Order: sequence, then structure tokens, then C-alpha cells
Amino acid sequence: MKKLINESDDVVDEMLDGMTAAYPDLRRLPDTQVLVRDDAPVAGKVGVVSGGGSGHEPTHGGYIGDGMLDGAAAGDVFSSPTADEFEALLDATDSGEGVLAVIKNYEGDVMNFETAIEMVEMEGTDVATVVVNDDVAVEDSLYTSGRRGVCGTILVHKAAGAKAAAGADLDEAQRVAQKVVDNTATMGMALTSCVTPEKGEATFDLPDDEIELGIGIHGEPGTERTDVMSADEITEELTEGVLDDLDLDEGQEVVTIVNGMGGTPLMELFVVNRKLQELIGDHGLETWDAWVGDYMTSLDMAGASITVCAVDDELKELLDAPADTPGLTVQ
Amino acid sequence: MKKLINESDDVVDEMLDGMTAAYPDLRRLPDTQVLVRDDAPVAGKVGVVSGGGSGHEPTHGGYIGDGMLDGAAAGDVFSSPTADEFEALLDATDSGEGVLAVIKNYEGDVMNFETAIEMVEMEGTDVATVVVNDDVAVEDSLYTSGRRGVCGTILVHKAAGAKAAAGADLDEAQRVAQKVVDNTATMGMALTSCVTPEKGEATFDLPDDEIELGIGIHGEPGTERTDVMSADEITEELTEGVLDDLDLDEGQEVVTIVNGMGGTPLMELFVVNRKLQELIGDHGLETWDAWVGDYMTSLDMAGASITVCAVDDELKELLDAPADTPGLTVQ
Repeated sequence: MKKLINESDDVVDEMLDGMTAAYPDLRRLPDTQVLVRDDAPVAGKVGVVSGGGSGHEPTHGGYIGDGMLDGAAAGDVFSSPTADEFEALLDATDSGEGVLAVIKNYEGDVMNFETAIEMVEMEGTDVATVVVNDDVAVEDSLYTSGRRGVCGTILVHKAAGAKAAAGADLDEAQRVAQKVVDNTATMGMALTSCVTPEKGEATFDLPDDEIELGIGIHGEPGTERTDVMSADEITEELTEGVLDDLDLDEGQEVVTIVNGMGGTPLMELFVVNRKLQELIGDHGLETWDAWVGDYMTSLDMAGASITVCAVDDELKELLDAPADTPGLTVQ
Repeated sequence: MKKLINESDDVVDEMLDGMTAAYPDLRRLPDTQVLVRDDAPVAGKVGVVSGGGSGHEPTHGGYIGDGMLDGAAAGDVFSSPTADEFEALLDATDSGEGVLAVIKNYEGDVMNFETAIEMVEMEGTDVATVVVNDDVAVEDSLYTSGRRGVCGTILVHKAAGAKAAAGADLDEAQRVAQKVVDNTATMGMALTSCVTPEKGEATFDLPDDEIELGIGIHGEPGTERTDVMSADEITEELTEGVLDDLDLDEGQEVVTIVNGMGGTPLMELFVVNRKLQELIGDHGLETWDAWVGDYMTSLDMAGASITVCAVDDELKELLDAPADTPGLTVQ
């Protein structure tokens, strides 16, 4: 294994310190793997938080800042944060207006967030939740009952964060978060496995002449192993999977994301975006905004996912509202 | 080879179309590999342009937009744009106020830019140039006489772009660009080779138990092959190389960049940043701003570079000025 790390046990700890060293607007809660806005809790504002295993950077800590998240708990690599971490996160981000917890649908994340919520509710903190399950590839999977939460989560952070920043109450923040979830679908694929710092070798075997469609962001099995295909063929498989699920009316406006899994050159993501936009047009849909980049990664995995979110005037306003975070800036 | 591409000959063409499909503010000049601001030339403003081989995305096209570049020419992968492409770029970005060409120090880029400049000057376009040579690793290299231009180029784009946006004339834009060059140093390293679409295999051999220090952004030889080292040891090697070159006074403020080479997880770049900031403090320097991300990549190479730029009040104002580009947003 060759990685830019020291001891594998220290990688999350050192990453978090490296993040606060880069971004003075982030603060690490002492003796935790929780990052929050330096000014948290923000008086009079509903808190919006998330969390999950590390290895998906910039998710989630990279989306902390004005207009998006108030804080995020980082688990160990590909492991859920503990209930204690989630509790510290909720405590630190409640200004008295309550906190919206955006949870990717993995059993550990859901269970530990729920335990934490029970604890803080006893102390008087109101918490609302939304569970993101945008991955259309498979029902049930390693770590998940039902569909997995993947890159569409970023759009939930953005919309709910903007709603909270605009002064919405907890119910309203939850409503728009759920609206994004209801209108978003994602499907991914891998050219290669990823290598965790702890294991030091590929988490799954993928022969040199095969790719995997429908892969999860931890390398969980997808829908199909196939021979290597062209970028256009892969883009078509992913896009059709996503659009089949959403079943949108002609003329519908959408946000698209071509997301890199961490080891994919940006050049290749643009090649995918070219074909994606062609397919969006072929389906009679209209791209209102197209994102291309590494938003929800899987360590060094080579591959990509495609996300489509159907937007109405409300979601467009929220997605277009200012945000200032390490991983996403909108002005 | 597994890549998200179609035919290797089409990759740059399809990438550029994928970029304009994502960013309506970018326009591709017909029958070229040149991208410009959609509103180029911007009336009354000095143009700031760059260009070079593809494979370093978001460099350079990703830095086109308000406050940075007016346009960029993309060569084939790791190949200089032609003189014709540079000429089209200069033509399209001259509003009558002249154009500053930011050139990374590679023989092909310098030669072809110079040829293009001779052509457009005959037509009455004023062009000033700055040659970026921030790589401290080696004097002379494959493709280069003198030092190579690498990630520090982005700071030149930012400062010169801000100066031009503020209404400076061509001489002033060139002066601040040169000031960045004079105060910036970079050193990189690779854990793995990169694979070009055309060749389809590693461009150089790097055994599983070795890394290369001082590598160039096309895999050109560096200073040393060594056994795998820890992130802290690697960060120290790169940082000391950079700081030896700059020879800064105690108390000097600096901008630092931890740049990923394309295949490196963001997690690892933050681990490097943690140690970098410790070393900056040990040297009695003060970090005014710290950037962490993929700014100047080498396709799918795993590795990183460290850039340090000494800043005064003028450079701080320019680097802090608003910019709105696909690859860098400052608000």
C-alpha cells in the first residue's frame, strides 16, 4: 500500500486537524471527531448537521459553512460515528431552534443518530431527521436495509442549509430536505476498488478487464460486473437507471451531478458530462444546473456516479442561494 | 487500461464539450481547443490567458471566469497547444487593452506562445508574458530548460486576473504576475505513475515499495527515488525543499497549497496539510491562507505537491479578491 498517511489508526484524527488548519471557520469539538462552524450554535437559526464514515471527503465536514451544514460527525474510515459523537454534534449546533439531522441510509448511521437523538431530546433539543436513500442500484445491501444514501445527499445539505439560513423553522427545513430526497436519484460505477488505510489492499477484487455497475460508496456490490465499456456506454447505463427511477415528465428541469469517486481524473468526469447532457436532452428534460467534480468519494476508487434531481422554483432558489464551504461555494 | 473515455484521440475534444455543457459562462472557439469567457473580449479590460497540455484539470480552462482567466488553450494530453490555438486565444481575448499570457515553463508552450504572439502583434495586439517556473526540484528536465512551471501557476492566474479585473493596465497586470512568480516555490512527489489515454499504461515505472520526490506534472524525473515514507516525512522533504528555495524572513506571511495530483484522496491531502502547517510555524512563518485540493493534476497520478507563496499587502488583496470560476471561487 502506498498512501500519504502516517499510522492508519491516526488518519481520521490527522485529517480533521488538517481541515481545521486549512479552514479557520471550522472548529473541532475537543476529544471528538466532530467538526462544527466556529460560530455554532448560530443564534436564532435551525441547525443542519450530518455525518457518517470517513473516506468520502469532502463529505461531510467539507460542507460546513454559511448556507449548508452547521456541523458533521466523522466516523472512522467507512464506519459510522458513535452515538456519543452524534450527541456532541447535536448539542453543539442547537441554538434553541432545533436541529435537522441529514442521515445517509446505512444501518449504523441511522441507529447511532437515533440513539443520540433520544439523548438530546431528553435534554430539550428538538431534532428532525431526513434519511437519504438516492442510490437506485440495489434494494438492501451490505450495511443497508433499503436503498443506500450517496451523492444526492449533497443536494439535501445545500437545500436544507439554505432554508435554515433563510430563517425557516425546523419543520420547514425538514420539508425541503425531504423534497430533495423524493426527487433525487443516483447510480454509480467503479473501474477499480478502493484501498482503506487499515486494510491496505483492495476492499474487493475487480479484474483488469471488468467494471462494476451500481457499486456502493464503500465498494458494496452493485448490479452487474461487465467487460470494460466506453464512457458513453457507461454514462448511458447510469443515466437510464436514474431516469427510470425518477420517471420525470417532459420539460422537467433538473440538476445533474457527475461525481468522481476519488481516483478519477476530472478530465474523465467532463467526458461523462458531455454524454449525460446529450441524454438529458434526448429525454426531453432541461438541465437547470450541472455539477461536475468530487463531491462524495470512496477514497481512491476510480469511477463515477450520476445524480439527477428534479427541481421546482423552490428548490432552484435554495440550490442557488449563497453558500460558503470548503467543498462547495455558491455566490 | 480502464478509463472513463471513448476513443483516446477524442478525449480532449469531448472533455472541452463536457466543460461548456457544465458551464454556460464558457465558450469554445469553433474548430479549436480554446475556451474563453462567453463575454470575451471584456470591454476595457486587459485579457489574462494561459494554456498548456491537457491532463492537468482543472488547469487551465477551469480557471476561466470573473477575476481570473479570460481564456485558455488546451493541448492534447501532456502536449503543448499549437501556435494557431494560442493565436486564436489571444485574438479572442484582446479588447484593445492587450493580453497577459501566463506561460508555464515548458519548451513547447513557450515556443508556440511566442510564435502566436508575433502573429497577433503584427495585427496590433499588445501582449505581455510571464513565465512561471515555480518547481524547485530540478534545473532542466524533460521538456524544460530551467525550472518547470507547476501548481504555483494558479496563484499567478488569481493575482493577475484580479489586477486586470480591477482595471489595471497591461504593465501592471504583468508586474503582479511576475511578483507572484518571484515569491512562489513548489515541490511535488508521486506514489504512482499516471496513465495517459493514448499510451494506456504507466508513463514510468515506480515499484510498489518506492516513491519519487521532485516529480514533474507529466511524470518527468524528480530528484530521488526512495522507499515509501510516512506522510509526515514526505511533507517535511517537500516543505524544506520549498522553504530552502524561498529563504523567507521570520514572520513572513504565506499562502500554502497542498495540491493533489489527481488520484489522491482528499483525506490524504488534509493529513499533509496538518504537518505542513506545523512546519510553517516551526520556521517562524505565518499562514495567511491555506489551500487544499486538486488544482494542478497529472491525470490519475497519486501524489501531491506543496506550494508556498510569500505575500505582501498587495498580493493578499489580489488573492482575496472575488473570483468565480469552475475550479476556484472566492467571495
